[in-house]
Amino acid sequence: MNGRGPAESYQGVRMDAIDVIATKRDGGELSPEQIDWVIAAYTRGEVAEEQMAALNMAIVWRGMTRAEVGRWTEAMLASGERLDFSDLGVPTTDKHSTGGVGDKITLPLTPTVAACGAAVPQLSGRGLGHTGGTLDKLESVPGWRAEVSPAGMRRMLLDVGGVICAAGTGLAPADRKLYALRDVTGTVESIPLIASSIMSKKLAEGTGALVLDVKVGSGAFMKDVASARELARTMVGIGTDHGVRTVALLTAMDTPLGRTVGNALEVAESLEVLAGGGPPDVVELTVTLAREMLAAAGLDDAADPAEALRDGSAMDAWRRMVAAQGGDPDAPLPVAAETHQVPAAESGVLTRLDAHAVGVAAWRLGAGRARKEDPVSAGAGVTLHAKPGDRVRAGQPLFTLHTDDPGRLDHAAEALSDACAFGGGHTPLPLVIDRVE
Amino acid sequence: MNGRGPAESYQGVRMDAIDVIATKRDGGELSPEQIDWVIAAYTRGEVAEEQMAALNMAIVWRGMTRAEVGRWTEAMLASGERLDFSDLGVPTTDKHSTGGVGDKITLPLTPTVAACGAAVPQLSGRGLGHTGGTLDKLESVPGWRAEVSPAGMRRMLLDVGGVICAAGTGLAPADRKLYALRDVTGTVESIPLIASSIMSKKLAEGTGALVLDVKVGSGAFMKDVASARELARTMVGIGTDHGVRTVALLTAMDTPLGRTVGNALEVAESLEVLAGGGPPDVVELTVTLAREMLAAAGLDDAADPAEALRDGSAMDAWRRMVAAQGGDPDAPLPVAAETHQVPAAESGVLTRLDAHAVGVAAWRLGAGRARKEDPVSAGAGVTLHAKPGDRVRAGQPLFTLHTDDPGRLDHAAEALSDACAFGGGHTPLPLVIDRVE
Repeated sequence: MNGRGPAESYQGVRMDAIDVIATKRDGGELSPEQIDWVIAAYTRGEVAEEQMAALNMAIVWRGMTRAEVGRWTEAMLASGERLDFSDLGVPTTDKHSTGGVGDKITLPLTPTVAACGAAVPQLSGRGLGHTGGTLDKLESVPGWRAEVSPAGMRRMLLDVGGVICAAGTGLAPADRKLYALRDVTGTVESIPLIASSIMSKKLAEGTGALVLDVKVGSGAFMKDVASARELARTMVGIGTDHGVRTVALLTAMDTPLGRTVGNALEVAESLEVLAGGGPPDVVELTVTLAREMLAAAGLDDAADPAEALRDGSAMDAWRRMVAAQGGDPDAPLPVAAETHQVPAAESGVLTRLDAHAVGVAAWRLGAGRARKEDPVSAGAGVTLHAKPGDRVRAGQPLFTLHTDDPGRLDHAAEALSDACAFGGGHTPLPLVIDRVE
Repeated sequence: MNGRGPAESYQGVRMDAIDVIATKRDGGELSPEQIDWVIAAYTRGEVAEEQMAALNMAIVWRGMTRAEVGRWTEAMLASGERLDFSDLGVPTTDKHSTGGVGDKITLPLTPTVAACGAAVPQLSGRGLGHTGGTLDKLESVPGWRAEVSPAGMRRMLLDVGGVICAAGTGLAPADRKLYALRDVTGTVESIPLIASSIMSKKLAEGTGALVLDVKVGSGAFMKDVASARELARTMVGIGTDHGVRTVALLTAMDTPLGRTVGNALEVAESLEVLAGGGPPDVVELTVTLAREMLAAAGLDDAADPAEALRDGSAMDAWRRMVAAQGGDPDAPLPVAAETHQVPAAESGVLTRLDAHAVGVAAWRLGAGRARKEDPVSAGAGVTLHAKPGDRVRAGQPLFTLHTDDPGRLDHAAEALSDACAFGGGHTPLPLVIDRVE
């Protein structure tokens, strides 16, 4: 009756990609069998890229129910391997951030939580666009390697208490394929698709508890609190339905976190925090998230994360983690070949320092990549000499730009031209905006 | 800033498939440059199938303005050759039907209009699904060939006044590619996409005037009058904006046209009409559409189509058209190997005879194809012994089923089990429902 080729039978039900697309296009709810079939058949290459693209756009349009998004996540999880650390003898807990400018929190956070008695199996990614990737940052530590086998992860969780490494290609291969498709078809912007993509990877890593840091503001994917809250609720729903204790914090990303944006620059700042110092916002968010992670893991009487930063135990855990992956914690970090100061154009109280603009500047300086296969510069980035609330004088340095390629300076400085506002009329977001569980 | 590869520059504007998709996804209007670029780049294979699929689903969702759909049609038209009969010395006029069950109108209509003094360049298609194709019907005439070159078309228009033939692959190749994509991605159901697909093909054939027969009812693609009217208005708008005098009639497709459904069966019925007889609905629609086509061509004082059917001049034109394409107008038409009578289950006035059910039955008997590459049976189909409004007695034959394969009879009869209703509660649609210009 049509030119599409024969339908396939799945668990006794005839399945056809066009029927699945039409169900969602017409505003219906996909059945569990339809979801399982379409994800599995797409992963095998039997549902075509163009069919999945049309289905994704229909999902952007129509959304998904809680049952649909949970099943969609399960189906992606079922497409690959799943790590299991439930027999470790130590509670596991992890954090995921939706990505922000200057968001180096994973670096001090993982060893801090490990020092407090939980095990942290953290699978991270590389950066694409104006937000950096945790692996790119850690790779500026001489010798450090991102690849760790599942057996190696287990050993590190037992010996060191934490591991930050690259996700193997066997975890949620459906998500990997789907994400690449969404990236080229204008279908990234869908809360259920974002939520299921994140959660399929996080559930595949086998953590027992999960704290989500959902960023809100100009430097984040979610620009407003309402959509961030919806994303948070969707992800918490998926995790909870899956039996993982899941909590989300909505946190500010209208201005960069800390005073550095860039790979080695952010490692250096993380080391300040691990040494008991560092910028107050980075310390506060590290401690807040660490407490949430420990509570989610059921460790109510664990050591205090603030104390672990003060007494050096978090720094010790960091050094062991870095060394276990081949890194030299005492080696000097790379620095960029050139630096350039950008002075304040006027005097007054800095009321706005735009996260997105700073992220774009750092990216243009070489800290990020334009294409997946591009390398990043370890030393490139931006140092911030003032934060919102600070009083500055005209001519005083506002930013230091770091780059290996001086030809990039003008283009980067241009991104910063409208990044700042002085004086009233702008209220920064509170660091922690809301909590969803 | 993303992993999609570089954007392309087009008429000084940077173009990127994702930007085009996002514009439509977010409810914006595509610019003429975006439309020209995306259709041309897709035709060249530089915009991927999955990107066009996502864009199509966004169009299903958001629709298109009159300016967008006109430009979209122009861009598809510009992707290939265009025939030009403007120097023929005779006004050209054509008809297009959106497809219905038993819709053989093109067969008597084309020679009738030719006999009245206009030239009819009719490019037709083959059937897929439950509605038959004009070329499949004509191919049941022994010797008749569907392929005619543009030069051959011109010669027939001058010598015979009409030609019904297959569209060459060089006309609107973008539409050909896009239609195949829409067919497998659940994006057929969009009025602007349907309208631009039809109009790009009709405008490419170079007709000076166009009458659209937009079918409404169970046997048509448009099930209700409101969507049929919207499709009609969209197509009339495209034609008018393109400088082609375009009129649309909304006509009934709740019940089959005439008393036959099937290839040779419909040719035989068309011959009855050309001989001055035939079922009243087929005659009425033929004459009504012929008058519209002549008026649209500006031939207000042309011969009367009803007279051309009575005086044999339409039949003469038919015989010349068939012969010019190798057909023998005197050869007996193929008949099916087996026939089977289906009697009326009860007595009363037949108030409903469902077009879709009869179309499916004829298709199952072998008159249509399940896949594009399948052959059709020339003799297969359904003869109707009663039409809505007729009084029937239980046991009296309602249908005759014709097939070459008796194994198909049960499955076909099943399609007809709910096709009829007797007694009140059902009002058939009037044959001509509305007129849009």
